[in-house]
Amino acid sequence: MKLYENYADEITRLIASGTLRAGEPLPSVRQARASRGISASTVFQAYYLLEARGLVRARPRSGYYVLPRPALCEAPPPSQPRPGSHNVAVSELVFEVLSAVKSRNIAPLGSAFPSPELFPLEALRRAMGAGMRKLKPWSTVDDLPPGHEPLRRQIAKRYLRLGMGVTPEQIVLSNGALDGLNLCLQAVTRPGDAVVVESPCFYAALQALERLGLKAIEVATDSSAGIDLAALARVLERRKPQAVWLMTSFQNPLGSLMPNEKKRALVELLTRHQVPLIEDDVYAELHHGEQAPLPAKAFDTAGLVLHCSSFSKSLAPGYRVGWALPGRFGERVARLKLMTSLSGSIPAQAALAEYLQDGAFDRHLAQMRRRLADQQCSLLAAVEQHFPPGTRLTRPLGGYFVWVELPTQIDALALHRAAAQEAISLAPGPMFSARAEFRHCLRLNAGHPWTDQIGQAVAVLGRLAGAQAG
Amino acid sequence: MKLYENYADEITRLIASGTLRAGEPLPSVRQARASRGISASTVFQAYYLLEARGLVRARPRSGYYVLPRPALCEAPPPSQPRPGSHNVAVSELVFEVLSAVKSRNIAPLGSAFPSPELFPLEALRRAMGAGMRKLKPWSTVDDLPPGHEPLRRQIAKRYLRLGMGVTPEQIVLSNGALDGLNLCLQAVTRPGDAVVVESPCFYAALQALERLGLKAIEVATDSSAGIDLAALARVLERRKPQAVWLMTSFQNPLGSLMPNEKKRALVELLTRHQVPLIEDDVYAELHHGEQAPLPAKAFDTAGLVLHCSSFSKSLAPGYRVGWALPGRFGERVARLKLMTSLSGSIPAQAALAEYLQDGAFDRHLAQMRRRLADQQCSLLAAVEQHFPPGTRLTRPLGGYFVWVELPTQIDALALHRAAAQEAISLAPGPMFSARAEFRHCLRLNAGHPWTDQIGQAVAVLGRLAGAQAG
Repeated sequence: MKLYENYADEITRLIASGTLRAGEPLPSVRQARASRGISASTVFQAYYLLEARGLVRARPRSGYYVLPRPALCEAPPPSQPRPGSHNVAVSELVFEVLSAVKSRNIAPLGSAFPSPELFPLEALRRAMGAGMRKLKPWSTVDDLPPGHEPLRRQIAKRYLRLGMGVTPEQIVLSNGALDGLNLCLQAVTRPGDAVVVESPCFYAALQALERLGLKAIEVATDSSAGIDLAALARVLERRKPQAVWLMTSFQNPLGSLMPNEKKRALVELLTRHQVPLIEDDVYAELHHGEQAPLPAKAFDTAGLVLHCSSFSKSLAPGYRVGWALPGRFGERVARLKLMTSLSGSIPAQAALAEYLQDGAFDRHLAQMRRRLADQQCSLLAAVEQHFPPGTRLTRPLGGYFVWVELPTQIDALALHRAAAQEAISLAPGPMFSARAEFRHCLRLNAGHPWTDQIGQAVAVLGRLAGAQAG
Repeated sequence: MKLYENYADEITRLIASGTLRAGEPLPSVRQARASRGISASTVFQAYYLLEARGLVRARPRSGYYVLPRPALCEAPPPSQPRPGSHNVAVSELVFEVLSAVKSRNIAPLGSAFPSPELFPLEALRRAMGAGMRKLKPWSTVDDLPPGHEPLRRQIAKRYLRLGMGVTPEQIVLSNGALDGLNLCLQAVTRPGDAVVVESPCFYAALQALERLGLKAIEVATDSSAGIDLAALARVLERRKPQAVWLMTSFQNPLGSLMPNEKKRALVELLTRHQVPLIEDDVYAELHHGEQAPLPAKAFDTAGLVLHCSSFSKSLAPGYRVGWALPGRFGERVARLKLMTSLSGSIPAQAALAEYLQDGAFDRHLAQMRRRLADQQCSLLAAVEQHFPPGTRLTRPLGGYFVWVELPTQIDALALHRAAAQEAISLAPGPMFSARAEFRHCLRLNAGHPWTDQIGQAVAVLGRLAGAQAG
């Protein structure tokens, strides 16, 4: 048993025995280090584990607190996808569900986006004005891929804060992360190749595979700690996939977070097999706790990780500004960018370069993280109150998705159709699988300010699910 | 012989006989209609033909004038590509040449862009401010593909002025025309299919084919009037291509302009064969004469024309705002847009919607057309003065490219390398062919204000070419 597991178990016993009561704080990192001589990172790992167990909850800037009661719903068990590689044809279902979300009158529990009202639109508008005033006529040529240099410099500086030595030259700007991910996938595959994905996995990854004529190999994934490395190792041995596409932090739809050490092991495994990792890391900034997780890219010494992120989820949706750190595939990705859309939109890049110059982004993120954590608490409590017995729930430590596993007799697609009649959207499980699995699962969105309307929508969903459960 | 040819021949004789002298105006459209009872469009067609013969030149807003002297250089003959379909591998050469153009110290004769100084940057900046103030938080969801509605409405209104009944619902916004073209091409093909292109053709079309694993069928193209319809008809019969990709107005690199009636015949031919046309129409607004050409899309009754354009060449480079009118493939293209990059950059779309509200765009275009026409005159005169005997030249009626056919013993790639040593770029012919043909040809850029530096660069190019000619 590891040091942090020891410490977490000790706290668990203190909570179970009533020594630590609901609402009371856990020892601060400083206290824990001083009292037991363990490192700060051991303390954090222990607290993450306790959070994953549903016993404690971080409040940004004020530490960890014991939750009011043991969580009613267990976490879902790891997925068990059927073996083999598969052609993908998920788009019809995805577009049917997405088009339902576009209407403003629908309770947006199926949405993929956080509420637009969580973003600093006024500050961005001012940054746009300042950025445009600085823009030179020749920027249209100078800012061809890899893209606007001042923005690439700001992005590199943020990686430096994580201890990662990223230079602006290694960054290729893209039209949001999705553009970068598509370009990276095309850079390392040819039609007919097989690519490993999580199970369940983000439908846009499945759509990218579908569009490029690639086969999906779905690998077992734990709702708390991400992909099963032993299962992945077997697939690498036996099936020789051409690439692996993962969301390593706050995965969509599970919310799973691979611990930093597991990410290191992942990169080592892939490096032994010389298989590139496409890392979709758009939610990393939305950690609910104090500490930002590291990306797998932080452990990449061979240039095999093609890491993609963006500002769309954390700062400026609609600007479509993302980036890739494609490692050894940098030139190929920059060329694909030139070939497919020449460059990103320069005004948006200039605005964000301007916005990132001072501490505004960190202040905005601190507030947004707090709001997302609160909204998630409200959503989890409402689901536990209204959903039928046997429901399982993830309690992600970041992002704004919750994954719900319903009793197996419930059909999420039927629930989706019944909910649409009540002006409620949800994201049914089969969207997240190459073979329409997870029929009794759904993803809910905690990215919107908690209102009576949303609370009632959860209650209605619970009632509809209960009716199906019989 | 057609009516307009009759009239053009008559004017030609008047010029040859000295009745109409250099610098004198041709009869105005009103005069010609009144004096001979022919229609305005017949007069225009006649004047276009005279312009193509190098005898007259339009001055925007003041009519047509007799050129000072008969042009020295003839136009190149139609191309004669070898038959068959071919895999494409042009990217290495294209990227080598493009990277040479990025440096600001190079005389930009090989550039694909007009000078950034031709655009109304200050007015765009104000429009961005106004557009951002109007933008609602929910625009990030509402403006998902097909894209920002106010901009689609402005674009639809511009088509209305051409007599085309386009509705905002038929328009899908893209990240510049290139993004739209790539999505349209993917919407109508599968890897391994064959696609007809012009010979020579825009290298980005070849790169799109290369990226999607498509084969190119190059069809003979006239430097003045575009693709040879008889040759195209034979290819449609015998080789069953999956799509045709053409630049119907001011083609890159030739500058050729298919007359409106020829475009109608093209669409009828393709409709008979049920083969989609991808129409790249980014230069249409840059006509040097009075009248805008119609796109082939204007004659599309079957929804088989996927028409793409943008503001990148005419108004706002770097904003990356383009659009597609994909006809019956509209939903497929919008979905591919969602799958590859979710949406375009909303601030840029909002800025252009704002800019297009009053007459500023038309005033800017009038000025830009005049400047491009003047710059082309200067470039043509300099090439005629400095290039070796036997050089042939196109005299496009719009856009900012000139295609130069050198004596056959000259190698444009060698000339490109020698010119790079002298800090001069050019676009060698083999960039524009799937099989590196046009070895003795090159494309020159007339999109930059005429300066001594550019004049000297043309003189140096002429000297280098002359040395190779021996």
